[in-house]
Amino acid sequence: MTRSGRRTGDSGTREAVLAAAREAFGMQGYGATSLRAVARTAGVDPALVLHFFGSKDGLFEAAVELPLDPATVVQGLLAGDRDGLGERIVRTFLGVWDGTPGQGPMLAMLRSAVSHAEAAAMLRELLLRVILLPVARGAGGDNPERRAGLLASQVAGLAVTRYVLAIEPLASATADELAPLIGPTLQRYLTGELP
Amino acid sequence: MTRSGRRTGDSGTREAVLAAAREAFGMQGYGATSLRAVARTAGVDPALVLHFFGSKDGLFEAAVELPLDPATVVQGLLAGDRDGLGERIVRTFLGVWDGTPGQGPMLAMLRSAVSHAEAAAMLRELLLRVILLPVARGAGGDNPERRAGLLASQVAGLAVTRYVLAIEPLASATADELAPLIGPTLQRYLTGELP
Repeated sequence: MTRSGRRTGDSGTREAVLAAAREAFGMQGYGATSLRAVARTAGVDPALVLHFFGSKDGLFEAAVELPLDPATVVQGLLAGDRDGLGERIVRTFLGVWDGTPGQGPMLAMLRSAVSHAEAAAMLRELLLRVILLPVARGAGGDNPERRAGLLASQVAGLAVTRYVLAIEPLASATADELAPLIGPTLQRYLTGELP
Repeated sequence: MTRSGRRTGDSGTREAVLAAAREAFGMQGYGATSLRAVARTAGVDPALVLHFFGSKDGLFEAAVELPLDPATVVQGLLAGDRDGLGERIVRTFLGVWDGTPGQGPMLAMLRSAVSHAEAAAMLRELLLRVILLPVARGAGGDNPERRAGLLASQVAGLAVTRYVLAIEPLASATADELAPLIGPTLQRYLTGELP
């Protein structure tokens, strides 16, 4: 089943793998995407995909061009006290968005997600599976999928309100002002009694 | 200062007024837009704009092509008990979005808002000035502008999570399931003690 014209390890190949990965993750979601299928679409050997990106997680993170390492973020969030988790998420989230290297790509990702189903699926995978679901699991409440979805609704809403719609006073507020306003919402979604 | 070629009251004129209104509301916001300036851009007499749309509010609502009368919505929300306001907003919001005539134009408005600054300004005016700010004022808490902004962050986030990113279980949940989950967030933003 080898393909004629199979590409070898140059930077064009890396881009071809990333393009195939974006298509696969976007169309089928993270779970149904295999490194083998991505390699086949890109016309390369699966070993080369592993060589470039280390793992399926690494491939996903390269495909979405994350400005940060999500595992480190999740670890940092879960490191402190359980009751401060909601406020820490607000502060971390604003820190990433407001930091110079982060805001451009993240805003671009949000923009494409709203107009392209494929990009929406990528953002959903990233926000939920890579960040909010591990945080909800780590916080130890029941039904972490539902809690992560609720978290996503307030976090995505803060992004849209602050960075896209520029609704005041949220758009100009500091993290210190927003954390005690929005933190309790996230805290309830994470660890509160829910019906 | 009369313009030659001034249009008279046909349907092309109505459309020209609406186009001028969208541009003005989008570029300058609701507050800085005058009926007179819109009429001048459209090349018609200000009296004709009033004749078509009744008021600046009426012109704004026609320009954003609302699938509902916002004054009626606000009145309905504020009619019941104060403690149920958060849940009522969730139910009303989902009712409008999930209703057949409403979802198309509202999703289109959200999509354009994320990619065009002008559409973002229109959506901001609509969501805040026409709906959430009157509700926050009616609920009687301090600093209604801030409360309305916080409301917007959760309401816009619910729309993005449910209708754009299709994050489960929020995307498939019924209004009866979502109201007690998200209603308390809105209730705190409206009437709770905030720092």
